[in-house]
Amino acid sequence: MTDPQRPPSERARVRREPERARYDRATIDAILDEALYCHVGFVHDGKPVVIPTIHVRVGDDLLLHGSPASRMIRSITGHPVSVAVTLLDGLVLARSVFNHSMNYRSVVLFGTAEVVEEPALKLEAMRRFTDALVPGRWGEARVPTDLEVRSTTMLRIPIAEASAKVRTGPPEDEEEDLGRDTWAGVIPLRLTAGEPIPAPDLRPGIPPPGVPS
Amino acid sequence: MTDPQRPPSERARVRREPERARYDRATIDAILDEALYCHVGFVHDGKPVVIPTIHVRVGDDLLLHGSPASRMIRSITGHPVSVAVTLLDGLVLARSVFNHSMNYRSVVLFGTAEVVEEPALKLEAMRRFTDALVPGRWGEARVPTDLEVRSTTMLRIPIAEASAKVRTGPPEDEEEDLGRDTWAGVIPLRLTAGEPIPAPDLRPGIPPPGVPS
Repeated sequence: MTDPQRPPSERARVRREPERARYDRATIDAILDEALYCHVGFVHDGKPVVIPTIHVRVGDDLLLHGSPASRMIRSITGHPVSVAVTLLDGLVLARSVFNHSMNYRSVVLFGTAEVVEEPALKLEAMRRFTDALVPGRWGEARVPTDLEVRSTTMLRIPIAEASAKVRTGPPEDEEEDLGRDTWAGVIPLRLTAGEPIPAPDLRPGIPPPGVPS
Repeated sequence: MTDPQRPPSERARVRREPERARYDRATIDAILDEALYCHVGFVHDGKPVVIPTIHVRVGDDLLLHGSPASRMIRSITGHPVSVAVTLLDGLVLARSVFNHSMNYRSVVLFGTAEVVEEPALKLEAMRRFTDALVPGRWGEARVPTDLEVRSTTMLRIPIAEASAKVRTGPPEDEEEDLGRDTWAGVIPLRLTAGEPIPAPDLRPGIPPPGVPS
């Protein structure tokens, strides 16, 4: 069992506001599963590069995919990588400027990306990527051909060195600011889906899938 | 004038799907200004680290701030850094799994972070950070004391080596998939604000500020 209070490694230890740190897999997995995309950091020519991409969690691994020609894919395969996932939950408005903050849930993961070679595993990972967008989508869309599977590089990063950081709740103001006539509280933020926009060449009579809640 | 078709440097050149690349400052600035947070990548002990944080653009600089004790602040001051900002605009559902995508607007910036020393400039930057959360908030909240300004490290990264990447519009399916009975199109996604939640210790009769649209 992971101890929710103990970082798995020194580099995965949350430094700032350690009271917001969570090291348990349940918290980490829930954040990874809810987020639709992540930011991948790697070192290229000795310098840092950050690129957004989509991810999916399968058991104890975070999976990334891309074209074999991608700089990101080539730079991280077999090399150290850091992946961050952030969900913004609200603006925290305090009575003092200094105590303004945000409510959020984030995960920072460290590891080395390894290639997933087995075609059956790659196909299963592609199913997860697809159903993460809209549950059940895999059963509606045309599944990948062997060539499409072969032309996708799938990478796996073990979820071993990870930390979550979570801020919830109201602002924390200094005692001497509580008497001010300034509104204080939280403005919740949420990613919401709008009305589906059919493709211009969609044949008539095909209903849209259930949209993510 | 920046040529919208030309990258400012080789490392800032968009590799994958170069038709989505934009190098003009108007596009880059609009994305930086709309986003409420970014992901900062740096090298620590030779390995990559990615951390979410908030940013604000002031003219030709991207500003970050934090505690002088922060690992991120200490690691990037005077060192190469990469900052990525991503706005997710929609899920792109194609008839084939392989052509599923997302609509998004992102910026990737490379540079070196320099300390902003002047107290007046730091205070002005703090005003921008505050008003970026809720326009006009600076005029409502208690402004920072000299001590609060001194205990905040403000960093500036020139917006010189940056690229934007933008995907919009419907899915692009293969000709042979167009006849399928699979819905195709875009599900728009948007960060929306909910009802303000007053702090438990808020004095009665103070209305919430206008929430970001």
